[in-house]
Amino acid sequence: MSIFEERESDIRAYSRLYPVVFEKARNAVISDESGKDYIDFFAGAGVLNFGHNNPAMKKAVIAHLEADGVTHSLDMETTVKRTFMERFTERVLEPRGMPHKMQFMGPTGTNAVEAAIKLARRVTGRHEIAAFQHGFHGMTLGALACTANSVFRNASGVPLQYVRHYPFGCEPVCLGCKRGCGMESLERLRAQYTDSSSGVPLPAAFIVEPIQAEGGVNVASKEWLQGLQKLAREIGALVILDDIQAGMGRTGSFFSFDGMDLDPDIVCLAKGLGGLGTPIAMNLVKPEHDKHWAPGEHTGTFRGQSLSFVAGTEVLEYFKDATMMDAVKEKSARIFEALAPLEKHPEVQVRGKGMIVGLDLGTGERVKQVALQCFAAGVLICPCGTGGRVLKLIPPLTIPDDQLEAGLKIITRAAEEAIKAA
Amino acid sequence: MSIFEERESDIRAYSRLYPVVFEKARNAVISDESGKDYIDFFAGAGVLNFGHNNPAMKKAVIAHLEADGVTHSLDMETTVKRTFMERFTERVLEPRGMPHKMQFMGPTGTNAVEAAIKLARRVTGRHEIAAFQHGFHGMTLGALACTANSVFRNASGVPLQYVRHYPFGCEPVCLGCKRGCGMESLERLRAQYTDSSSGVPLPAAFIVEPIQAEGGVNVASKEWLQGLQKLAREIGALVILDDIQAGMGRTGSFFSFDGMDLDPDIVCLAKGLGGLGTPIAMNLVKPEHDKHWAPGEHTGTFRGQSLSFVAGTEVLEYFKDATMMDAVKEKSARIFEALAPLEKHPEVQVRGKGMIVGLDLGTGERVKQVALQCFAAGVLICPCGTGGRVLKLIPPLTIPDDQLEAGLKIITRAAEEAIKAA
Amino acid sequence: MSIFEERESDIRAYSRLYPVVFEKARNAVISDESGKDYIDFFAGAGVLNFGHNNPAMKKAVIAHLEADGVTHSLDMETTVKRTFMERFTERVLEPRGMPHKMQFMGPTGTNAVEAAIKLARRVTGRHEIAAFQHGFHGMTLGALACTANSVFRNASGVPLQYVRHYPFGCEPVCLGCKRGCGMESLERLRAQYTDSSSGVPLPAAFIVEPIQAEGGVNVASKEWLQGLQKLAREIGALVILDDIQAGMGRTGSFFSFDGMDLDPDIVCLAKGLGGLGTPIAMNLVKPEHDKHWAPGEHTGTFRGQSLSFVAGTEVLEYFKDATMMDAVKEKSARIFEALAPLEKHPEVQVRGKGMIVGLDLGTGERVKQVALQCFAAGVLICPCGTGGRVLKLIPPLTIPDDQLEAGLKIITRAAEEAIKAA
Amino acid sequence: MSIFEERESDIRAYSRLYPVVFEKARNAVISDESGKDYIDFFAGAGVLNFGHNNPAMKKAVIAHLEADGVTHSLDMETTVKRTFMERFTERVLEPRGMPHKMQFMGPTGTNAVEAAIKLARRVTGRHEIAAFQHGFHGMTLGALACTANSVFRNASGVPLQYVRHYPFGCEPVCLGCKRGCGMESLERLRAQYTDSSSGVPLPAAFIVEPIQAEGGVNVASKEWLQGLQKLAREIGALVILDDIQAGMGRTGSFFSFDGMDLDPDIVCLAKGLGGLGTPIAMNLVKPEHDKHWAPGEHTGTFRGQSLSFVAGTEVLEYFKDATMMDAVKEKSARIFEALAPLEKHPEVQVRGKGMIVGLDLGTGERVKQVALQCFAAGVLICPCGTGGRVLKLIPPLTIPDDQLEAGLKIITRAAEEAIKAA
Repeated sequence: MSIFEERESDIRAYSRLYPVVFEKARNAVISDESGKDYIDFFAGAGVLNFGHNNPAMKKAVIAHLEADGVTHSLDMETTVKRTFMERFTERVLEPRGMPHKMQFMGPTGTNAVEAAIKLARRVTGRHEIAAFQHGFHGMTLGALACTANSVFRNASGVPLQYVRHYPFGCEPVCLGCKRGCGMESLERLRAQYTDSSSGVPLPAAFIVEPIQAEGGVNVASKEWLQGLQKLAREIGALVILDDIQAGMGRTGSFFSFDGMDLDPDIVCLAKGLGGLGTPIAMNLVKPEHDKHWAPGEHTGTFRGQSLSFVAGTEVLEYFKDATMMDAVKEKSARIFEALAPLEKHPEVQVRGKGMIVGLDLGTGERVKQVALQCFAAGVLICPCGTGGRVLKLIPPLTIPDDQLEAGLKIITRAAEEAIKAA
Repeated sequence: MSIFEERESDIRAYSRLYPVVFEKARNAVISDESGKDYIDFFAGAGVLNFGHNNPAMKKAVIAHLEADGVTHSLDMETTVKRTFMERFTERVLEPRGMPHKMQFMGPTGTNAVEAAIKLARRVTGRHEIAAFQHGFHGMTLGALACTANSVFRNASGVPLQYVRHYPFGCEPVCLGCKRGCGMESLERLRAQYTDSSSGVPLPAAFIVEPIQAEGGVNVASKEWLQGLQKLAREIGALVILDDIQAGMGRTGSFFSFDGMDLDPDIVCLAKGLGGLGTPIAMNLVKPEHDKHWAPGEHTGTFRGQSLSFVAGTEVLEYFKDATMMDAVKEKSARIFEALAPLEKHPEVQVRGKGMIVGLDLGTGERVKQVALQCFAAGVLICPCGTGGRVLKLIPPLTIPDDQLEAGLKIITRAAEEAIKAA
Repeated sequence: MSIFEERESDIRAYSRLYPVVFEKARNAVISDESGKDYIDFFAGAGVLNFGHNNPAMKKAVIAHLEADGVTHSLDMETTVKRTFMERFTERVLEPRGMPHKMQFMGPTGTNAVEAAIKLARRVTGRHEIAAFQHGFHGMTLGALACTANSVFRNASGVPLQYVRHYPFGCEPVCLGCKRGCGMESLERLRAQYTDSSSGVPLPAAFIVEPIQAEGGVNVASKEWLQGLQKLAREIGALVILDDIQAGMGRTGSFFSFDGMDLDPDIVCLAKGLGGLGTPIAMNLVKPEHDKHWAPGEHTGTFRGQSLSFVAGTEVLEYFKDATMMDAVKEKSARIFEALAPLEKHPEVQVRGKGMIVGLDLGTGERVKQVALQCFAAGVLICPCGTGGRVLKLIPPLTIPDDQLEAGLKIITRAAEEAIKAA
Repeated sequence: MSIFEERESDIRAYSRLYPVVFEKARNAVISDESGKDYIDFFAGAGVLNFGHNNPAMKKAVIAHLEADGVTHSLDMETTVKRTFMERFTERVLEPRGMPHKMQFMGPTGTNAVEAAIKLARRVTGRHEIAAFQHGFHGMTLGALACTANSVFRNASGVPLQYVRHYPFGCEPVCLGCKRGCGMESLERLRAQYTDSSSGVPLPAAFIVEPIQAEGGVNVASKEWLQGLQKLAREIGALVILDDIQAGMGRTGSFFSFDGMDLDPDIVCLAKGLGGLGTPIAMNLVKPEHDKHWAPGEHTGTFRGQSLSFVAGTEVLEYFKDATMMDAVKEKSARIFEALAPLEKHPEVQVRGKGMIVGLDLGTGERVKQVALQCFAAGVLICPCGTGGRVLKLIPPLTIPDDQLEAGLKIITRAAEEAIKAA
């Protein structure tokens, strides 16, 4: 019996699906201790946008360690934090005219969400958060209340309160769906919020993922997000965009909502922000909201993650010109092109944007079968969506073309077989 | 205007107290970018038990990176996680006969607490958690409800529910205090819980820090903790020991509660567990409770923190024999000896165990004055307790004797002055 | 200054609208102490269905008192309670094949609702109640959470939880309304409840007024109520029909939902059940649910209201044949006929069933003006609906034709004037 | 099978204990339909302080009905309400210099409590209510959260929130009890409320019964109530005295707290206020708090209960001079004298004040046995306290001496036997 079986909590999950011990990884390839390689279409659940052990990041981090740079600093000022913040301002905020402040907290996405909803409640004096069906925002109690999946919710042990969920775009079920039908859902929200006898309190904020990743790669339309923001403004609610998984270049631009003419009050970032896989989380907060914080009200031991600042500064280098993002768009096109033939099967749907693509196969069993067959064939890929019915393709943005092709071939072949077998 | 003033959230706190930019650090010395050195009596809020840039840890982490070891793996199995778990079992669990399983979650203490209370609620089918006055357990909504300080609680934005707080030992106020008077408080709890008309529901768990760190360095007695555990067993509640700040050798033994004949259901660890300052959190859970988890019910992107496993494995080397812990005891004695004279002032109290020592000066203003004077004199030290009335001494366990002496001299001199000035 | 101004709570409301002191009342006429008569189109907010001081009820109650009959008995058995229960079984339950048990509790509608939702939660083990926009179910905390109007909700002082509100039929706002469009709303509910990632828990019950009285006289369609019941059955939720204001003959049949082929799990009754204006409340509960109660779990000092049983037995006499209900239908037709011409004004809508009729004038100011003018002209009538925009006509079912005509003339004339004045 | 077995809810409780059908009642005697008489030591759970079918009240009510007086008026002004309010002001408020306003709401005690805590929350802007162990305040969700007994609490179906319970005086368990030891409990409350790291929010109000009736006839001391009021003032909380069962003359004065130099913010009254057993509830509210109500925020159909006003006006006649209250004191002395010998048994305790007296027999089984034996011997008496361990003696204040003696003889004999049998 391995130490994992003997001593690791029964809660472990991915390790049950992929029962090997991983040892090394470089860019889009991860290898187990027997030396077997896997093309990685999972990339640490969206953390490793620029590949495992990205050479520039690795080099910078090793240099930092060798120079005895400060590794841990809570929220004290450090040289590497300064560099990261300056670079982030220059590469991300200023080009977009974003006046937002950067807030660092406990270095996980769920902590970013907790801080965001605390602040929204403080700013508005309201309790309720409006979240969306199929959304995923984390596991701690405040964020978990925003997460829609009942598998996670049922583990809370107490009622999850002060959050109501509404349909995401025209998801999850569309009655007579047509493009833009999510707009009617917004009208219903407007009606509800403007009726003083609706029984529904005004929300402090809407929290929404422009692209729901865990929820099954559901992409919100520009029209719907703009409508949502308009509604929020009308009723005095904030807009929190959770770009934790889809941001940092994943969709071909730094934010997944770039180009949508949105003006979010708070943006939650984490996952890929640190580049190398070391944790970090950051909220971008409009100054007029940020000033409602008193110093130290939401703390966290691991706020000042130097290694993440160092590697994250290298992440930002990919955004100094269009090269990388153009490459993402090309690879994205290639992925959609490769998957398109599967849509001839009526139970299959391909969704996504940039290099986050969901292959909805209709059932979790089918997806599991495909994932296991891919694994056997040397591709690491994971399910998402309710019941795991969607295969999520999120390879590193830096995946070489040949590996991308090889991976797509294995995936599409396995999917074809699974569909036929059904 | 620096980038921090311009772009960092107003919530920043420590950086307001220590307005320099830190650059380098080694063992017990941290240096700002002007080259000024500070003897570090804060150690990353208890994270850096074995010093900044601990050479063994640094070496191991660099080697891991250079070999392209996997850095991020969620809850998949990796070679470095295996080594860490084996070493932890051998060095910590087996010598104590602890059958506990290890659960990894989001790599922060608050996440560990959230997972612990979820599980306790699941196991018992009860909602309530009994926590203690002056306790600190984190910032996310579930953990925050367990945290006592109203500064943090008031930022929640919604009512904090399903947690009740009780006096910690004979804290916070003792009516006719005598040694062991916390035992009467336990009798009152027992009376309340065994009276079906008390209006108070039975708790799922008691969550308690054997040593309250943020709360002001309050040390629970063995008698009281045993009494609490006995009460918990009687009423079918779990005992969760939050050893996040006081564990990992800080008190002269791996756990702060070693030698107290306790048998906790869950132990929460984080902070110092990863050694180098990179995040990690882990709960130790009795197998009979752990089996109530279904796979994947409490997830987290940054569960499999390889760098923390690698450095954490080096942490465990310090526990292979008594050398380091003996040194801690010696240094602890030296600290208490140095501070003892201050207790001649009636408003001063020295509390603590091992190398976590609180110097209670009665008021936050006095502590702030001391901290600033220390900083000017080259010692980094921070307040804790309600209103910041306690100066917390938590230097690296590896601090050289001369730096310890020099630091203590600066601290005691500043304290004397502050007391006299009052 | 009158004793009312001097000593009655500022919360008083109707007495501000009608600043006279009432003294006597008989059937549909109420008189103030100066001797001025008012035709009563309010009937004690729907309590006095069979008129003020109904002679048969008055006679029976006086006889009971003179014979020293038991007046107050908690839930002990009395002869008059037996008679009431036998008569209710014979006149109401048996003809409809209803196996329901009768539960008596505190003698107010809000208490009936509290008991109903407690039981639904007990039976299902679920927390949530699904209620409807514009619904009114009472003022105590559990019932208040089901009430939609924010005026009442805002007085709660704590967040109102475990209840979610959904559109009632196609109310409150209809997007492209057509007959039966409330059915799409049910489809959205079905979609939400059957999606395990909707973030919305399954409800213990739906609570709905077949006719929303306070909410503005909104009449649910048979189709929609049947659809709701079907959905409830599918998802294991109970159906609670709150017929507190619209029941007891008001609509031309004992229950307002008679003839709709419904099979409610619980029916809440109060108001008119006691006939003479003395309080009583009763839930009708299916035996398979009722058995989940343990004796004494929901008590109440004033459960056994003998005077209400005595007068209520007389109420039931009106249901021994079709005479009274036929009269109600005739008078109802007369009311709708009289109001119909007002609907030529586009801002006016007439809604209702039987002798509960709402005249929606679009604004609360207009309604208030009409109510005051009616009052001056000798008609007592009150507003309902959000902002008081609906005039509610609920005269005693026993109102003589000439008084009905006289009252309708005054009302329609005042309404015409108010509309013209706008 | 009787109609009760066939059709009454399984929740019925008293009728299971006393399986007869009651028919008539006069003063302190209630008779079943077979003609058997019972001396009534229960008096409708404290409602019928002046006896069943009190002749003056009966006469007044019949006269009101015969004159076609208004019976039901919501919160409109009526002549009988005016008379009641004037008399109440003259007999109760003015002699005590109480500036309080009278608020009428749904006519049950639970509704009075709901209104009181709503207002306290409104006035203070706080959520929490501090209630006391063994307290009873009603069955609706807000009041139920204040009720301590887990039998009732467990029926709530949802978590009961925003209320914390504390020891009542030195109840329920006293550690080294001495007279006045409840004062230490107040010191602990003070310590908790004045410590900003106690984790316990400041309460909007303390709600307390000066004499806990349902809780087992526990009498709070003047010292403790004064201490509680002092603490409340210090922390800005209101004091709500729930005198629903012990008020209206039961203790030998109108209020049970008369003579204690208290100045409550709100007093809740119901039960005996209406005299004849018809429902009524009323809060007395200090004007400075009352003005926080907006008109109509807490409504209720059965607010204006004319029959209760008419009979209640007769209740107030008993307070025009000392005659009746003197008689209560004499009878009280007789009751305590009769029960005193039972206290020779160590498991027996006699508690109470005026004519509310608890005979604590240690176990519910013993009390049940005594109650059944009394019933067989012609005395109606009921249990209270946790598990029903206390026999509650609350005969009408107007009980004739011979019936009092006869009843006490039966009760004490049955108690002696039950104690010996054990």
